[in-house]
Amino acid sequence: MTISPVKGTRDFYPAQMAVHNWIVDGWKEISLRNGFEEYDGPIFEYLKMYQVKSGDEIVEQLFSLTDRGGRDLALRPEMTPTLARMVNQQINSLPKPIKWFSVPRLFRAERPQKGRLREFFQWNIDIIGVDDVLADAEVIFTTVDYLRQIGLTSKDIKVKISSREFLAGFLKSIGIPEEKLGDIYVLLDKSAKLPPGVFEELLTEQIPDKTISKKILDFMVEQSIEQVRDITAPNESTDSALEDLSKVFDYLGNMGVGDFCIFDPGIVRGLAYYTGIVFEVHDAVGELRAICGGGRYDNLLKDFGGPSIPATGMGMGDCVLEILLSEKGLLEKQLPKNAIDYFVAYVDDAYKNQAVKITMDLRSKGLSANFSYKASKLNKQLKQASSQNAAKCVIIGEEIESNKLAIKDMNTGEQTLVDLSEFLSE
Amino acid sequence: MTISPVKGTRDFYPAQMAVHNWIVDGWKEISLRNGFEEYDGPIFEYLKMYQVKSGDEIVEQLFSLTDRGGRDLALRPEMTPTLARMVNQQINSLPKPIKWFSVPRLFRAERPQKGRLREFFQWNIDIIGVDDVLADAEVIFTTVDYLRQIGLTSKDIKVKISSREFLAGFLKSIGIPEEKLGDIYVLLDKSAKLPPGVFEELLTEQIPDKTISKKILDFMVEQSIEQVRDITAPNESTDSALEDLSKVFDYLGNMGVGDFCIFDPGIVRGLAYYTGIVFEVHDAVGELRAICGGGRYDNLLKDFGGPSIPATGMGMGDCVLEILLSEKGLLEKQLPKNAIDYFVAYVDDAYKNQAVKITMDLRSKGLSANFSYKASKLNKQLKQASSQNAAKCVIIGEEIESNKLAIKDMNTGEQTLVDLSEFLSE
Repeated sequence: MTISPVKGTRDFYPAQMAVHNWIVDGWKEISLRNGFEEYDGPIFEYLKMYQVKSGDEIVEQLFSLTDRGGRDLALRPEMTPTLARMVNQQINSLPKPIKWFSVPRLFRAERPQKGRLREFFQWNIDIIGVDDVLADAEVIFTTVDYLRQIGLTSKDIKVKISSREFLAGFLKSIGIPEEKLGDIYVLLDKSAKLPPGVFEELLTEQIPDKTISKKILDFMVEQSIEQVRDITAPNESTDSALEDLSKVFDYLGNMGVGDFCIFDPGIVRGLAYYTGIVFEVHDAVGELRAICGGGRYDNLLKDFGGPSIPATGMGMGDCVLEILLSEKGLLEKQLPKNAIDYFVAYVDDAYKNQAVKITMDLRSKGLSANFSYKASKLNKQLKQASSQNAAKCVIIGEEIESNKLAIKDMNTGEQTLVDLSEFLSE
Repeated sequence: MTISPVKGTRDFYPAQMAVHNWIVDGWKEISLRNGFEEYDGPIFEYLKMYQVKSGDEIVEQLFSLTDRGGRDLALRPEMTPTLARMVNQQINSLPKPIKWFSVPRLFRAERPQKGRLREFFQWNIDIIGVDDVLADAEVIFTTVDYLRQIGLTSKDIKVKISSREFLAGFLKSIGIPEEKLGDIYVLLDKSAKLPPGVFEELLTEQIPDKTISKKILDFMVEQSIEQVRDITAPNESTDSALEDLSKVFDYLGNMGVGDFCIFDPGIVRGLAYYTGIVFEVHDAVGELRAICGGGRYDNLLKDFGGPSIPATGMGMGDCVLEILLSEKGLLEKQLPKNAIDYFVAYVDDAYKNQAVKITMDLRSKGLSANFSYKASKLNKQLKQASSQNAAKCVIIGEEIESNKLAIKDMNTGEQTLVDLSEFLSE
């Protein structure tokens, strides 16, 4: 019987696992230094949890299953609903603001393609309980703090920022009815990925009135908050949304990451639950899908049966990121080399027990060590030591009868004879 | 809408996550120093992969789902079939022996109870390509290396070791036919958990011949390898199995963990694929389920379409372990305290931007830092700093006008005035 892996999943052999761990360890390190605490939830939740607020695209891509009691479950396609559930469950005892991060494994039953798999990992950071767009700026700062730490510069990537709140106000002000907004968001979110002309066509299907669709097309090409302000009829909701946008850019400048950030009215985000600042990070060339995205979702916890409490966050998948890092040559440059401290070799089976004992002694002292399972030719054992990137090799030969060991430095090739007891007590 | 988590799953709030991370980090550290390399596979595999070799108990407890193409998948209930699949896929290019570890999330749709959940984590270590029982001993050593590292002594836990190969030979020698062996293994594996008398009853159901069942009952109470040898008719298979068992104990003694290890003929392991040495670690009191178990499975890779290659390994779940650690008081004693280096407070909103900038500067330098989102009363901010276990608090007051900051040591309460630029360049 030969069985293949399921399409759209990955096998992490040690070499791939090293890359994966390097990415995840970086996410964790940056989260912790930015003051986020780690949490996690179950891999599956009740199906209905995703049917309410996640947006049609995600609902269509759910992997569903049933438990023994016949209840419908789904593998989590995103982390935010679980976060909302967990925070709501302990809303009264959790100190506010809540700054949490997680690196969940997520699942979407979509067609596997470049940068999109059915099973992937996603770094999530969220700040709950802060109204001030300072929290949105902090989420963006933390995102950039990671990306520049792994070697990406403001020439490689751009944080594109807009406001869902502004967009809603603008669309309503030009005559789009509330119930059409969801469909328009999904269409605008796709606009950059559509071939030229196709977006205009689809927009006309949604909005037959050419005067109105023209206003949307004009808006989408604006380059600055000022230009957008100029073409928008003044009203309370759009004014305050634009002020928030300006504030975010001020904060980001003050935080030292202004050069990474630009305003882009085309940033909408597909998910239904965003309410304020939204952003995406893209490679500067614009060849790949978004590296990450996020924004403010002030109504979600309430929608999940909790109190009205402001929230903002970001999610970054591992697939697009890994493609970008590999294209830029940043992976091989920075990946730590897998290595052990000692390899213990022995020239005769008579010394096997001593080799084993010395290896276990080294391990018990906290050093990483391997040994040969048999007294094969010394050259073969040394080859094994070097294929395992051992820093040093212990060679047990006849000298062990007088309690002496040879230690070979695998980098310099230098070999010295040392006293066994001295070596072990070091 | 209020939604509850699925029964048998866990929410890891930051406090629980800290415990979980401490356990997983320990598993990883011990694996690496014992020379194992990390790997991982997908959360789901084709259902048929588990229907062949995993044993009835596991097959009954599978969470199954279907992909878009209608193919039957299952959430992984154990890691070994994935390991066999991955190793077989690259059998020719992987350097031997293969020493791999993993910490997979696993799923079993069984009734949740103490120490058993539907979703859990399991540390797996495996050595593939070594015939010598030295590899079995190394797996046991690595297991003990972890358990003693986290504070468990040979008074707290026992490694109970036996041989499936011996058991098979012994059962056949007393007249049990080959096709009955699987059922007898499952029954013997359960014997310690059954109330007195019930095991005898079930054994009589399986083996009506009292002379034969009496021989099994006598065997199960033997205390030493010598006693077992005395009651076994000499033959090649049982003799070599007993010799292997003796060798394992010799190796373990030489490795310095002999005091943790005892022979126990009642150790069988439920899974169908074991072929040689089998072992379980139990708490000395015997109150809990096995902390972990493992053994040799020399036929599995071949059964999965690969070559005939020897293998041995161990799996340790997180649930029973956590209960034991918590009962022994070892968790609170050793758990690292979650803490940040700096909390940045400010006495007036006019200093907010400077507080934000200083915080981001500290983070960019690799220090963990948080700040207050508003200029609330200083006492309130200091309280927040101490609830976040900040080591130091930066206080921005009027002195900032002359580029001075107060730094408060949160442990001693000592407060000093420092120069802003000196502080940041430190």
